[in-house]
Amino acid sequence: MREAFHDQLDAIFTDLAEICGQVEVAVHQATESLLTGDASIAEAVISADAVIDANRERVEDNAFALLSLQQPVAGDLRTVVSALRMVSELERMGDLSVHVAKIARLRVPNIAVPDSVLGTIVKMAEVAEDMVRRVKSIISRRDVEAAIELGRDDEVMDQLRRRSFAELLSDDWNHGVEAAVDIALLGRYYERIADHAVSVANRVVFVVTGEQPQRG
Amino acid sequence: MREAFHDQLDAIFTDLAEICGQVEVAVHQATESLLTGDASIAEAVISADAVIDANRERVEDNAFALLSLQQPVAGDLRTVVSALRMVSELERMGDLSVHVAKIARLRVPNIAVPDSVLGTIVKMAEVAEDMVRRVKSIISRRDVEAAIELGRDDEVMDQLRRRSFAELLSDDWNHGVEAAVDIALLGRYYERIADHAVSVANRVVFVVTGEQPQRG
Repeated sequence: MREAFHDQLDAIFTDLAEICGQVEVAVHQATESLLTGDASIAEAVISADAVIDANRERVEDNAFALLSLQQPVAGDLRTVVSALRMVSELERMGDLSVHVAKIARLRVPNIAVPDSVLGTIVKMAEVAEDMVRRVKSIISRRDVEAAIELGRDDEVMDQLRRRSFAELLSDDWNHGVEAAVDIALLGRYYERIADHAVSVANRVVFVVTGEQPQRG
Repeated sequence: MREAFHDQLDAIFTDLAEICGQVEVAVHQATESLLTGDASIAEAVISADAVIDANRERVEDNAFALLSLQQPVAGDLRTVVSALRMVSELERMGDLSVHVAKIARLRVPNIAVPDSVLGTIVKMAEVAEDMVRRVKSIISRRDVEAAIELGRDDEVMDQLRRRSFAELLSDDWNHGVEAAVDIALLGRYYERIADHAVSVANRVVFVVTGEQPQRG
């Protein structure tokens, strides 16, 4: 019984890592569509989101089945409930990638990001994608050290967000209101992807250690 | 045993309604600080968020205790897990109110919302607050009909968001980039509060009927 339980739990975490891989692709392609103005890539992100949603439902069904049939308590119970929360956050990260892709699509054949702020937005996108990639490995390996490390890097995203605001609110900004609004929202979406990545990593720490991560 | 379970479940839903009431106050005061430029009201929203966070933790602890000790299955299990999700969403609605209050605080002693778009933002804030107020009653009464009705009204918020974009991207906009970015982000925050309100209402439908809401 216990062994069957842990096999099924492992299968759920394998599914979570797989969904995280799909989110990684979504973030990558959303950024690609944003930087190239390629509508077909934006469309690919938007339509692939249904796969993430379907996988979320499967994980939820499996987690409920595990709760109902195996009646876990204490640490095992918290692990299954944590998995339910992780899958909600991963799905949300997929939705945020769709929001990025929709801004890209809205500006086709132009590119939503003006040159003067391109460096900052590219960096934000890279940080977000890198965090999602690391979360996938953190889930697969239940890697507490890497999870704690990820939380520390969240500060980089905050700095980039502040830099993007400084750029679009400077006197040199001559790309108008529409581009400024796009940048502000894109910054918000990448920041939220990073927030969710940290939150998923924190849940892995909690699942393994039974405690919230402490960062020195 | 069953009776004790349902008493404890009722207590959790009473707590959820209470937290929803605190979110209602947060949304109301955040809007007030935004429209008056009163820093002390913005500060009140920001500091009161700790109370919402603490209440969320209490609900989570109670829900886990219920899962561990009573080992619910089927509908009862789904209800407890739904309560865990509802409390996450309510906490998030509190965070979004804090974001609104922080924009208000950033512009003190000025008011972040220019006159020309004031009507639209006031309307968005009213719709958001009204939805939160109705969700509180939907949770208290497990009111499926009102929950389904709430989901229909989400379209109003979408229309207002589109109108705010039209206003700040029009040729008449002469309030500069900073105000436009504030309005875009404020619109996003109110829209997300409304999204979460609908989601919480949908969970009430699911708890009562065992099915996702169908809207004709």
